[in-house]
Amino acid sequence: MSASDHSPAAVLPGRVAFPHRHLTGIGGLQPHEITFLLDESEQWIEANRARAKNDRRLDGVTQINAFFENSTRTLLSFEIAGKRLGADVVNMGVGQSSVKKGETLIDTAVTLNAMRADVIVIRHGSSGAVQLIADKVDCPVLNAGDGSHEHPTQALLDALTIRRRRGSIAGQRVVICGDVLHSRVARSNMLALASLAAEVRVVGPSTLMPAAVEQMAVTRFTDFDAALDGADVVMMLRLQNERMSGAFIPSTREYHRRYGLTPERLALAKPDALVMHPGPMNRGVEITSSVADMPGRSAITEQVEMGVAVRMACLDVLTRRARGVEGWA
Amino acid sequence: MSASDHSPAAVLPGRVAFPHRHLTGIGGLQPHEITFLLDESEQWIEANRARAKNDRRLDGVTQINAFFENSTRTLLSFEIAGKRLGADVVNMGVGQSSVKKGETLIDTAVTLNAMRADVIVIRHGSSGAVQLIADKVDCPVLNAGDGSHEHPTQALLDALTIRRRRGSIAGQRVVICGDVLHSRVARSNMLALASLAAEVRVVGPSTLMPAAVEQMAVTRFTDFDAALDGADVVMMLRLQNERMSGAFIPSTREYHRRYGLTPERLALAKPDALVMHPGPMNRGVEITSSVADMPGRSAITEQVEMGVAVRMACLDVLTRRARGVEGWA
Amino acid sequence: MSASDHSPAAVLPGRVAFPHRHLTGIGGLQPHEITFLLDESEQWIEANRARAKNDRRLDGVTQINAFFENSTRTLLSFEIAGKRLGADVVNMGVGQSSVKKGETLIDTAVTLNAMRADVIVIRHGSSGAVQLIADKVDCPVLNAGDGSHEHPTQALLDALTIRRRRGSIAGQRVVICGDVLHSRVARSNMLALASLAAEVRVVGPSTLMPAAVEQMAVTRFTDFDAALDGADVVMMLRLQNERMSGAFIPSTREYHRRYGLTPERLALAKPDALVMHPGPMNRGVEITSSVADMPGRSAITEQVEMGVAVRMACLDVLTRRARGVEGWA
Repeated sequence: MSASDHSPAAVLPGRVAFPHRHLTGIGGLQPHEITFLLDESEQWIEANRARAKNDRRLDGVTQINAFFENSTRTLLSFEIAGKRLGADVVNMGVGQSSVKKGETLIDTAVTLNAMRADVIVIRHGSSGAVQLIADKVDCPVLNAGDGSHEHPTQALLDALTIRRRRGSIAGQRVVICGDVLHSRVARSNMLALASLAAEVRVVGPSTLMPAAVEQMAVTRFTDFDAALDGADVVMMLRLQNERMSGAFIPSTREYHRRYGLTPERLALAKPDALVMHPGPMNRGVEITSSVADMPGRSAITEQVEMGVAVRMACLDVLTRRARGVEGWA
Repeated sequence: MSASDHSPAAVLPGRVAFPHRHLTGIGGLQPHEITFLLDESEQWIEANRARAKNDRRLDGVTQINAFFENSTRTLLSFEIAGKRLGADVVNMGVGQSSVKKGETLIDTAVTLNAMRADVIVIRHGSSGAVQLIADKVDCPVLNAGDGSHEHPTQALLDALTIRRRRGSIAGQRVVICGDVLHSRVARSNMLALASLAAEVRVVGPSTLMPAAVEQMAVTRFTDFDAALDGADVVMMLRLQNERMSGAFIPSTREYHRRYGLTPERLALAKPDALVMHPGPMNRGVEITSSVADMPGRSAITEQVEMGVAVRMACLDVLTRRARGVEGWA
Repeated sequence: MSASDHSPAAVLPGRVAFPHRHLTGIGGLQPHEITFLLDESEQWIEANRARAKNDRRLDGVTQINAFFENSTRTLLSFEIAGKRLGADVVNMGVGQSSVKKGETLIDTAVTLNAMRADVIVIRHGSSGAVQLIADKVDCPVLNAGDGSHEHPTQALLDALTIRRRRGSIAGQRVVICGDVLHSRVARSNMLALASLAAEVRVVGPSTLMPAAVEQMAVTRFTDFDAALDGADVVMMLRLQNERMSGAFIPSTREYHRRYGLTPERLALAKPDALVMHPGPMNRGVEITSSVADMPGRSAITEQVEMGVAVRMACLDVLTRRARGVEGWA
């Protein structure tokens, strides 16, 4: 599928296309707003593959990445995205946080705002922390993951990957497998995929499944094999280390036996079904190496690539108003 | 008060205005030199509030932030300041420091110098460490806090805040309350405010008061209520965690009772007295939330904003000679 | 010796001069290729001493510094080198590494690649880890030190220092003293210096000497005094803290007595012999302060300066193909 099918120029009616100040979650977005962000992302895919990647549209913009929770790839992805657009990117890591000195989260937010940040990217261990900050600052806030609440750019990059590889999202049968209960990746994906008319199935141990998951317009399974029937996409969740023993699952071996994606199990899905994982992977636990690396089927590396493109689009779109872009001011 | 009252153009006679190579402290600066830095800062306040913030005058300048002591806001502030002026900003954090490998501080300084740094910003836990480094390098050094010695940019941003909010500094009655003994913020402020003809009062537990504080042209109080009488500005110091129990104060509760700034206590100052705090705050210890957030009275957020402007001015001024700016070379 | 003696323009026949995709080690390089990198470095020495240091030839290039092992000076040096050339430099520190979350090194490499890095600089604790990554990515990889294998830019900066200070490398008698067994600095230097026809002698405790060191075209000594006879260059290695007690050497005092470089010992070398050390130094252990700081003899600070120039040259040269530089595409 070529980028021209989603030419941003054709659909861009200025600020009406995306009237939100922040991106705190997929919840609250209209389907056409999600599609708009995907369309905007397309242009950056090719740009990132070119020799000279930088576009200077965020010249003079101060982007603060405030990561209160450790992260490698998400931080790298946002940092690269901002720098490729010409922003002055500043990282505030968890280790440096004044929160350690007893400062409240609100005070930290007010401080970043007073330094005249133009966009703040936040990752935080508590659900709702990002919204709390968004309410206190004058600039756009981008949620890079908050507790078990949302991780909207992950859902966008997953949707973009599916759209490019499968031609569309509507009607695709997507199976999300793993710790759905604690996963902000699962939550944002359920919201985005259901909104874009995919058929979403979730599967995992009953101890790791939210009670009211059906309210999210998804179908719940406990048997992975049954869930895989006719699947277009199999999206595996990372098993967090802290769940790996004791309370939630009996053992990683038992987990792998019931919910690990193996070649045999993948054969139950459609013959060309896509394999996805947000990374970092626990090879041999939730996914076997042969599946993770299966040519033509695994989209895991492409997800990483789409991540930078999606974050560039979000940084661009959210700062248009402040930058006085025509139609957005 | 508008920035035009302090137009830099009117007073700028080139290098005579600020003949110092380094900014290691407020001590040693003439009153007109302090005022010059405040005047220079004014232009950046408005610039930082504008859409496109960057000015490229430090293009090609390598700024190394060598922070041997943890810090969030001061590091962020210097990093943002440098990047907005176009400098190549490189952070060297405490965790990475070769000092951990047994290297001497002098060797670290010589190394940074050999990499052809153009300006080095240093924070260090030992008083005098910054001067030690300044003596060994070819480029300007900016003190971002050394032990209990000085924190000159904090004093400058505080002075700028007072000047803008109160119209002038001369004649203002400023009460500094807290751990004056260990505070480099207090020390630099006493020097700056006395130099600019403010009337400075210090107050705090006798265990946290320097023996010879009167030599700094300030008046010493132990009773906070008495000190507040007629105050124009109440500047609270952060109570460091390590002093909070045992040797210096009986308990944080007792400290709050005697030296915490409450609405009742603030009422003893002038009706429009300004409330300041360098942050991060221990709400409920040295200051109550209602005072910290009091509209029209608290200048705490504005202090953070002035911080970036002051640091931009210092980075600009100190590098003028090396950049060959007319009148400065 | 002036830079004009090594004018890059005169010898540059495009990609033939340096046909390698990566710089994983000195091993495998032809003598003229090493010389080419040294020649290319010359231009950056003067550029770095100038007022405005930046050259924008790496504009739009994403440089990822993936340091899986702690480092101050090497990371700083690569970061400064990249920024001075206009690259978007992104650091991935050991503390943030997803490897901690159980991700394999290959998965990390594939992730960096998918983010469309244009050059990756890697330091890793395991010998061969850099080559492993180089085999998996589409962009040039620069080895910033891997285990006890190689540290090629250190050998290049050392060679450049010797060439500039001694006029040439061929025929110079270079004594490398210390923990040759575990030192990637020693290994890369032996390869580079032997390749450029220096006469290399290695000396150190027999427990810290590789078994087959003679195969590297160097002469082995156990008596430092004997090795120093007629030396043009004395290159001291850092004694790693972890070797300082127990298994390898009896005590640091004993080590200093036998292998520490003192003024008396230096007097056994040629009267104008050069003193070198890769830093950070353990003053009083492998080198006494009076030797480390000896004017006209110690080249330790110059080594640091050459480091930035060499890294700029390597970043420039390795990215020429992708940047479509004439003769390199």
